[in-house]
Amino acid sequence: MPQTDLPLEDLRRYAPRLPAPADLQEFWDATLEEAGQWPLDASWTPVDSGLVTVETFDVAFAGFGGHEVRAWLHLPARALRGEEPLPAVVQYQGYNGGRGLPHEHVFWASAGFASLVVDTRGQGSGWTVGDTGDPVGSAAAQPGFLTRGVESPQEYYYRRVHTDAVRALEVLRAHPAVDRDRVAVTGVSQGGGLALAVSALAPGVRAVMPDVPFLCDFPRATRIAPGDPYGEIVRYLKAHRDRVDQVFATLSYFDAAVLCRRSSAPALFSVALMDQICPPSTVFAAYHAYGGPKDITVYPFNDHEGGEAHQRRAQLTWLRDRFGRPARPAAG
Amino acid sequence: MPQTDLPLEDLRRYAPRLPAPADLQEFWDATLEEAGQWPLDASWTPVDSGLVTVETFDVAFAGFGGHEVRAWLHLPARALRGEEPLPAVVQYQGYNGGRGLPHEHVFWASAGFASLVVDTRGQGSGWTVGDTGDPVGSAAAQPGFLTRGVESPQEYYYRRVHTDAVRALEVLRAHPAVDRDRVAVTGVSQGGGLALAVSALAPGVRAVMPDVPFLCDFPRATRIAPGDPYGEIVRYLKAHRDRVDQVFATLSYFDAAVLCRRSSAPALFSVALMDQICPPSTVFAAYHAYGGPKDITVYPFNDHEGGEAHQRRAQLTWLRDRFGRPARPAAG
Amino acid sequence: MPQTDLPLEDLRRYAPRLPAPADLQEFWDATLEEAGQWPLDASWTPVDSGLVTVETFDVAFAGFGGHEVRAWLHLPARALRGEEPLPAVVQYQGYNGGRGLPHEHVFWASAGFASLVVDTRGQGSGWTVGDTGDPVGSAAAQPGFLTRGVESPQEYYYRRVHTDAVRALEVLRAHPAVDRDRVAVTGVSQGGGLALAVSALAPGVRAVMPDVPFLCDFPRATRIAPGDPYGEIVRYLKAHRDRVDQVFATLSYFDAAVLCRRSSAPALFSVALMDQICPPSTVFAAYHAYGGPKDITVYPFNDHEGGEAHQRRAQLTWLRDRFGRPARPAAG
Amino acid sequence: MPQTDLPLEDLRRYAPRLPAPADLQEFWDATLEEAGQWPLDASWTPVDSGLVTVETFDVAFAGFGGHEVRAWLHLPARALRGEEPLPAVVQYQGYNGGRGLPHEHVFWASAGFASLVVDTRGQGSGWTVGDTGDPVGSAAAQPGFLTRGVESPQEYYYRRVHTDAVRALEVLRAHPAVDRDRVAVTGVSQGGGLALAVSALAPGVRAVMPDVPFLCDFPRATRIAPGDPYGEIVRYLKAHRDRVDQVFATLSYFDAAVLCRRSSAPALFSVALMDQICPPSTVFAAYHAYGGPKDITVYPFNDHEGGEAHQRRAQLTWLRDRFGRPARPAAG
Amino acid sequence: MPQTDLPLEDLRRYAPRLPAPADLQEFWDATLEEAGQWPLDASWTPVDSGLVTVETFDVAFAGFGGHEVRAWLHLPARALRGEEPLPAVVQYQGYNGGRGLPHEHVFWASAGFASLVVDTRGQGSGWTVGDTGDPVGSAAAQPGFLTRGVESPQEYYYRRVHTDAVRALEVLRAHPAVDRDRVAVTGVSQGGGLALAVSALAPGVRAVMPDVPFLCDFPRATRIAPGDPYGEIVRYLKAHRDRVDQVFATLSYFDAAVLCRRSSAPALFSVALMDQICPPSTVFAAYHAYGGPKDITVYPFNDHEGGEAHQRRAQLTWLRDRFGRPARPAAG
Amino acid sequence: MPQTDLPLEDLRRYAPRLPAPADLQEFWDATLEEAGQWPLDASWTPVDSGLVTVETFDVAFAGFGGHEVRAWLHLPARALRGEEPLPAVVQYQGYNGGRGLPHEHVFWASAGFASLVVDTRGQGSGWTVGDTGDPVGSAAAQPGFLTRGVESPQEYYYRRVHTDAVRALEVLRAHPAVDRDRVAVTGVSQGGGLALAVSALAPGVRAVMPDVPFLCDFPRATRIAPGDPYGEIVRYLKAHRDRVDQVFATLSYFDAAVLCRRSSAPALFSVALMDQICPPSTVFAAYHAYGGPKDITVYPFNDHEGGEAHQRRAQLTWLRDRFGRPARPAAG
Repeated sequence: MPQTDLPLEDLRRYAPRLPAPADLQEFWDATLEEAGQWPLDASWTPVDSGLVTVETFDVAFAGFGGHEVRAWLHLPARALRGEEPLPAVVQYQGYNGGRGLPHEHVFWASAGFASLVVDTRGQGSGWTVGDTGDPVGSAAAQPGFLTRGVESPQEYYYRRVHTDAVRALEVLRAHPAVDRDRVAVTGVSQGGGLALAVSALAPGVRAVMPDVPFLCDFPRATRIAPGDPYGEIVRYLKAHRDRVDQVFATLSYFDAAVLCRRSSAPALFSVALMDQICPPSTVFAAYHAYGGPKDITVYPFNDHEGGEAHQRRAQLTWLRDRFGRPARPAAG
Repeated sequence: MPQTDLPLEDLRRYAPRLPAPADLQEFWDATLEEAGQWPLDASWTPVDSGLVTVETFDVAFAGFGGHEVRAWLHLPARALRGEEPLPAVVQYQGYNGGRGLPHEHVFWASAGFASLVVDTRGQGSGWTVGDTGDPVGSAAAQPGFLTRGVESPQEYYYRRVHTDAVRALEVLRAHPAVDRDRVAVTGVSQGGGLALAVSALAPGVRAVMPDVPFLCDFPRATRIAPGDPYGEIVRYLKAHRDRVDQVFATLSYFDAAVLCRRSSAPALFSVALMDQICPPSTVFAAYHAYGGPKDITVYPFNDHEGGEAHQRRAQLTWLRDRFGRPARPAAG
Repeated sequence: MPQTDLPLEDLRRYAPRLPAPADLQEFWDATLEEAGQWPLDASWTPVDSGLVTVETFDVAFAGFGGHEVRAWLHLPARALRGEEPLPAVVQYQGYNGGRGLPHEHVFWASAGFASLVVDTRGQGSGWTVGDTGDPVGSAAAQPGFLTRGVESPQEYYYRRVHTDAVRALEVLRAHPAVDRDRVAVTGVSQGGGLALAVSALAPGVRAVMPDVPFLCDFPRATRIAPGDPYGEIVRYLKAHRDRVDQVFATLSYFDAAVLCRRSSAPALFSVALMDQICPPSTVFAAYHAYGGPKDITVYPFNDHEGGEAHQRRAQLTWLRDRFGRPARPAAG
Repeated sequence: MPQTDLPLEDLRRYAPRLPAPADLQEFWDATLEEAGQWPLDASWTPVDSGLVTVETFDVAFAGFGGHEVRAWLHLPARALRGEEPLPAVVQYQGYNGGRGLPHEHVFWASAGFASLVVDTRGQGSGWTVGDTGDPVGSAAAQPGFLTRGVESPQEYYYRRVHTDAVRALEVLRAHPAVDRDRVAVTGVSQGGGLALAVSALAPGVRAVMPDVPFLCDFPRATRIAPGDPYGEIVRYLKAHRDRVDQVFATLSYFDAAVLCRRSSAPALFSVALMDQICPPSTVFAAYHAYGGPKDITVYPFNDHEGGEAHQRRAQLTWLRDRFGRPARPAAG
Repeated sequence: MPQTDLPLEDLRRYAPRLPAPADLQEFWDATLEEAGQWPLDASWTPVDSGLVTVETFDVAFAGFGGHEVRAWLHLPARALRGEEPLPAVVQYQGYNGGRGLPHEHVFWASAGFASLVVDTRGQGSGWTVGDTGDPVGSAAAQPGFLTRGVESPQEYYYRRVHTDAVRALEVLRAHPAVDRDRVAVTGVSQGGGLALAVSALAPGVRAVMPDVPFLCDFPRATRIAPGDPYGEIVRYLKAHRDRVDQVFATLSYFDAAVLCRRSSAPALFSVALMDQICPPSTVFAAYHAYGGPKDITVYPFNDHEGGEAHQRRAQLTWLRDRFGRPARPAAG
Repeated sequence: MPQTDLPLEDLRRYAPRLPAPADLQEFWDATLEEAGQWPLDASWTPVDSGLVTVETFDVAFAGFGGHEVRAWLHLPARALRGEEPLPAVVQYQGYNGGRGLPHEHVFWASAGFASLVVDTRGQGSGWTVGDTGDPVGSAAAQPGFLTRGVESPQEYYYRRVHTDAVRALEVLRAHPAVDRDRVAVTGVSQGGGLALAVSALAPGVRAVMPDVPFLCDFPRATRIAPGDPYGEIVRYLKAHRDRVDQVFATLSYFDAAVLCRRSSAPALFSVALMDQICPPSTVFAAYHAYGGPKDITVYPFNDHEGGEAHQRRAQLTWLRDRFGRPARPAAG
């Protein structure tokens, strides 16, 4: 529970020079171009979430390889939204979570935004459920998702996941209720890492809100994080003692602290100094690398839960400053 | 993590004859009558929660001893509710939680109900924050709330808490937006125990939804629960070896599995068979003792988180069957 | 560490009536027939393991779906084996282990047997490494292998694994150095479960030696095992609360304690009474269900390591009684 | 268990400049003056402890706010003490301990001193029992004592405790059997922190013996201590993320490492380098800040138990050097 | 922490028929006779413990094999004892404790008894220190003392320890200050097991006070105790899988629950229902087997600490009833 | 699990100046000379290990004090070895392991070496069994082997163990099948520490292969190792607070990082950066002190298991470079 990473004053200076692959740009250009062969093919099916204040649609679209990815689209109830297109938020999920039940993740919709809550392929049997499989197998891997296909960037699991995440943004920006120039990406932990990756890889992101992001600074994370999910890589290398270089070479294509040098949208990070899952130094590594205007909220006495409702409130304020306050209907 | 309590078939039969104090009725009559000397004196102050779909009011009222108790009242946004009074839900909090930030607990309001989210005095520094102190001190006690004043029913902490809970119900039933004949009480863990207690002690409860309730069957709970909060009592008696009888005599006035024999409203319980905080047998003790019509949802592979969003959905369906479906506005 | 399962006298009587699917036979007949479309296509490549007493070959063959499965074939050094075909042992691996490095698993070869040490697809990043991937993806699943595709028997991961295991036996029996009528199957933990499954599904098994077998009596195992790997199923059902029946329906096709009713070869089981991974009752469930002549060695003070070298020695004695003593060369 | 704090050579230099509140003196002057409105009103009731070598009296006196505080006064048996007034020791208790049963804490009396073993209000349900309640309630607080009223110095729990401790010293110095110019204060952990506070706040202390003192250097302690009781503050701030500055402002009035700059009596500290409860750096912070002559015993391989009987023996030797050897009766 | 052993009503009936070796009597007769070849050769050297109320002597005597065993003799200070011989108590130590520093274990002397606090050979590096080595080696054994020489009763470590304990009683009974007809034996945990053994093996014991005794009902203890020291035997048998019968045969000569059938002095036991070290059933096994008049104090919410100061007080009362109240000197 | 010791770049520089006793040489000269009074008296009894590829002999020889020490001699099967004397390896055991069953440790023999697998006296009830007792007792010690006789170098347990280890080397070198000029010493953990000690104390060692060696840099190891076996010393000093200097003085005679300054044979070390038992800095302390040519394999993601089969393969390659490749028989 105590602060076991660097002291805050050192964290504020921790900016490692993580090696970027020479062909990083080409790799992602090719990957996204290949994915673009499949049309998004998004469908929107209304569902009864039980809530009366939010309208929810079951979304399916074609992700990497044309594989089906599922999401919920939540909108403020019809009576509460005007005719104007809405500002919008894509929300990515923490490790092993999913989009959940239709009534679960409605904060942004309740706050007046269109919100797309996206599954992570293969995941969704943890704190919230998902409905999206990953039809691609892998070489021998450690239980979990972090080492599936880690023997090469082409085969790596997160090549598919990052691509899905980019396409989810495209799906939301294409929805008629959405103002495509006021779309933010956000997420906690893995969701934060994906938000960072999308901000680097996709055009059209106007704000980024990563909370205690995962998938950052793998070299340090695997040395100091006391547990999972980074521990999956540790255990993989504990067995495959001869693949250390190969594995970190692969990971460098997906490390949010490498990718986000290319980001340019304003960003509001959060970090927790007692975070045992995503050590604060790894978050600061991404923060310092981030290419756009940025700020970071520091929670000195929190573990990986981070700021939770406090941070949600701070994000809402920050986002209203950028996107304007969602109009309340006259009667509201 | 495994099921360490009785097998399910034995749980379905586990109905201990817990001793009820001879003066149980008198004790609570006197307690509530004494509390009644202070008018409820409820105030409702609108707050900006940041949400556009729910209207929120900061509530203060006089609880036990006239002490101030805080709550949030959440209503569906003005545009979404008609002129009819709303069905309503009082939601009590789990151990050491509080009403939270204004935007945190809005499920029931989002589902169309008026909802009062009530603090527990002294608590609210745990999973969600509270704003209600307990101005009453105590004899030497174990850290935590379960042994404060446990040397006598008069001094016991939960005498104040149960009374606050009863009065919270009165506050909500008295609100003009509420249909006083369609009010339910609910809560998870401690909140479930309080919902049971209120169903036994207060008139006007029309439905009860206790999830994995705490404060049930203290004699068994203190023998088999591996951890806290029941462990507070264990540690108290570990030190005060000469007070075992005295402590259980006090607890019998507050044991939800004793009190709820007097309940009569329909109830939907939930129980988790791998619950390490509130062992399932203690929940079944309350379930079997419960005096009204009842049903119970069993989650065989869950720990104390119980059914979470799944149970919320089940409760919504069950409550609609009793209270009718909250009207959606025409445009919704 | 203590004995937390049933007392030994009750274990000796514990024979649950686990439900077998009505179409169990058809399911496996169809599965194996489908797999039979692909020829075994086994290759044998000599490798230098560094050892002088054992000859080792890198084996590849077509498993389920024609996917490549890897193994080592170990033979006693040329100078030590006569012209007679050798008795043989197929050795399956424990959860997340693999065939290891070429010099690692040479006990049976050192004892004079031909021995095939087979990978488990997708696994092999744990206590020993593997080289066999699983090219098939899955729906959303819990990290680990036990819930991949668990939503249906057709998609379930172990459908592929069991099939690979059956085919590994065929590969060994077809090798010219092997006496196809003296082939045993064995393994520890998951390897023991696979040995049992193969003894039920494949012709030609002449002896079965499952140690502390995994994959037995899923209904009880998931209720009482305190940890992983059974815990993967628990966590899956903790999230997917609505799939309990569906999941156990799938598992019943792969439960070694269901399948091995059909086995007929002599079997030597082992069980450890302090086993926290594969609780002894689940092993006795399989033992009592086993269809052939059988014996069981009980280790009262061991955890999941079971009998280790002691059991290896006992197996060697037991197997010599059945297969005869491998001839030592004259000079040996 | 290992040494996880700074290396000893750095500990010997660790002297943080902890900020002292500008009104520290005024705060305590006013607090003690206010407490002085209530006369000590001490009573001494002989009790039968079962021991024949020590005479014991049940003591009650008026502490902060005039609230009753309990203690034991132990004297060497009548036959063993002469007519001279005795040197004396006030012994404060570790966190959640109490004065215990009458026969429990008689070391100093057995060694020839008058000894007052004082309760800590509200505590005494842990390793030894107490009989002193705290009649003052608090705002919402974390279970435990460290965050009760931590929102302001006026309301903070330790304002009452420190005041009780000062008054206990006055009680003992006023007893006819005691030589008021030979009175020491001591205690382990919280008792050591209180001894330090009293040495700073009260006149008349002639020797101070704090062992592994608690309540020192809160800013560092809350960052590095792995567990409780400092963890209570951590958890409070984990929930109340917006109160960090406010909480540390309050704590600075009670931090023994701040207060003891004003101490002047000779002191014998002890510290344990593997202390997981009160990290050694926090003890050295107090040691270096201490205003009087001082020495420190370092136990390199001990956890929070510190020197125990070894330190008791060292203290006895040290105290005899200052107070003279308690006279043995002629016949002794 | 919870009660994991049998429920109290079953404990009250738990009286296993533990097998006694046929030659148990002969074994101990021969052992003690052999030990008797060496005269006790006790020496008494006054030491300065720092205490003025108790006189302490450093005692050495010849134990098993004539090996030196150390103890403290504590007497009430000269001025406090009359001319009459004193009632006396032999106090044996818990596992890995020793006689401690001279001022540590003076309760019985402070209460007016002569008291011999005896080392356990080889032990004394745990909670209190010892000064007595064990000059006898052993076959390969598990770290700890329980498996040294466990391959035969002749070689077993406790053959030496039990013999030392019997001779310590003889030493105390022979001291001129002691009334040899008012001598009790007592101890906590291992000390309680030794007190029971001595009550069975030695003449002259007039009262027995075993607290949460260890060394009872080895067959059950090794199956259910979750940790050490019983775990030493478990780990020994985990490695030496072929010695289960041999080990339990040896242990049956030293099992206090076997030996104490032969005891006849009045006994006051204590047991703790949450005892994780010496499970309560093993204590009840001894209690029910005990041959003399007996009573037992049950602590329902205590772990292995048992009754501590409460039990000390109860023992004092109980012992005064048997031995009379130690006379206080006139002036006392 | 994370890397908690120094970063690798600092480890590569960590070369503490550990104090060597002035009489270190004399001490060991005298010790080994004294041991030399007893002839080795080695016996070789063929046993049936069940293996056909390896010939095994039960070895007994006179170690320190003439006490019997047991070992296995494994040779490649007769048909596989030529007439030339074989290169050879002495393999020492990890803490509390033993030579095991005859078929357990045959790697080096399978690779063509004569191999002596030696017991450690008193140990052998852990991961593999032993058959060698230690007939020497000790003063009061902590459970385990590290503090037996630690009060003086003469009495210390490892004086006997190191001497046994030196003599085991002599035994193997004297065997007719062995080429006495091609003998290596090796071992994992304690076995690695013993290999280092033997390389310093005995003539005739031609290669040294210590893996994650134990018994190195006691001063640092006892401060930072989180658990056992180093923890035995910590707990000893936790009790015997007054013996810190004395204990470290004794240990300095046996510290492999002190002794191996005198070594001269080529050495291949291995170290694991996540080693929680033998922290990597303590291994580097020995590595840097080592007097001969040396290399070290670093496993960054392994705990105390180190390189396992990977390191075995690396050692085989390295040893072949020094000793030549063991001749395979023509037919092999």
